[in-house]
Amino acid sequence: MKLYLAPYAPNPRRVTMFIAEKGIADIDLIQLDLQKGEHRTEEFRRKSPFAQIPTLELDDGRCLTESRAICQYLEALHPEPNLMGADAFERAFIEMWDRRMELMFSVPLMLWVRHGNPVLAMLERNQSAEVASFNQGQAMRMAKRLNDELASRPWIAGDRFTIADITAACGMDFAKMMQWRPGDDLPHLKAWRARIADRPAGKVAA
Amino acid sequence: MKLYLAPYAPNPRRVTMFIAEKGIADIDLIQLDLQKGEHRTEEFRRKSPFAQIPTLELDDGRCLTESRAICQYLEALHPEPNLMGADAFERAFIEMWDRRMELMFSVPLMLWVRHGNPVLAMLERNQSAEVASFNQGQAMRMAKRLNDELASRPWIAGDRFTIADITAACGMDFAKMMQWRPGDDLPHLKAWRARIADRPAGKVAA
Repeated sequence: MKLYLAPYAPNPRRVTMFIAEKGIADIDLIQLDLQKGEHRTEEFRRKSPFAQIPTLELDDGRCLTESRAICQYLEALHPEPNLMGADAFERAFIEMWDRRMELMFSVPLMLWVRHGNPVLAMLERNQSAEVASFNQGQAMRMAKRLNDELASRPWIAGDRFTIADITAACGMDFAKMMQWRPGDDLPHLKAWRARIADRPAGKVAA
Repeated sequence: MKLYLAPYAPNPRRVTMFIAEKGIADIDLIQLDLQKGEHRTEEFRRKSPFAQIPTLELDDGRCLTESRAICQYLEALHPEPNLMGADAFERAFIEMWDRRMELMFSVPLMLWVRHGNPVLAMLERNQSAEVASFNQGQAMRMAKRLNDELASRPWIAGDRFTIADITAACGMDFAKMMQWRPGDDLPHLKAWRARIADRPAGKVAA
């Protein structure tokens, strides 16, 4: 299989952290140059019609986009270590936390960066200071809330590391482009991020 | 089981359309009054800490929020008719399309309404005309794109009706609050919506 991705991009990193945690070794990583528009070529759009990365290409040519959908496929091929839930309730419970992390934390963080960092004007042609500020506010409120949640458990969905931790970490690490990372005012969030650094997923470069 | 929801809210409707399509009869529907803040009470936050609806409460008291996570749980309890994929690839493929519909179409449509319709200022205290306009643009571009996709297949993820159709329809129907629905300039999108009206899911009031 081949995984198409790009340096620094946060959504492909969700999949490479997932792959690292699973210890999957048989996927070729193919880096695209977004500044050269390599994700927008006609050839690549045959694999990924919306020019999205990451894109997973199976050996038979079928393709999947959307990081969480790719992870779900890889979880089925490589069930251990389990990152997405072992029974019906746990699968739903972890999906709930993964979605909260994505929609309430990582997406706002990414939109803050995309609309607020001048370097990214090449990707986000309609940068808007108001969109940046709106999303910054949402993300910062969630950071405080998440800090409170992590006071009483080690990982976002409970006692073990799951895809929800990967999703939150990728959004948070991307926000370094706005010079933000949790400080001593968010001690539980900071300690949680430090715990990830010791894991296989934590070795994947941002 | 109990499902907490609210009249007119699009995310709970994703779950009630899913329930209708499955023919599940043993879930009590409990309507909350958002204008009275019934989703923000301390009692409800014990079920749904982020004051989210829909919330599913199991008979043992455990709760799930996030519409897609609730649907995943119900799919495991009631596998037929299958709405989320029957094998590893199909599950991922349908999740891919469901996510595209949510993130690229329904979320922009909902943000357009929440930020653009004065009636909803009670829910969205920081309404922003710029956020409304940004999301309107994204949604309208996706509507055209989706119209092209539906020229060659009856349903969003292929030959059969899936959760991806429900997600797209709920976003689209909510945008009636901005006086938008697909017209004759988007004939395939309009015909797709008309096909849903004939199904169990299509009988669920918006």
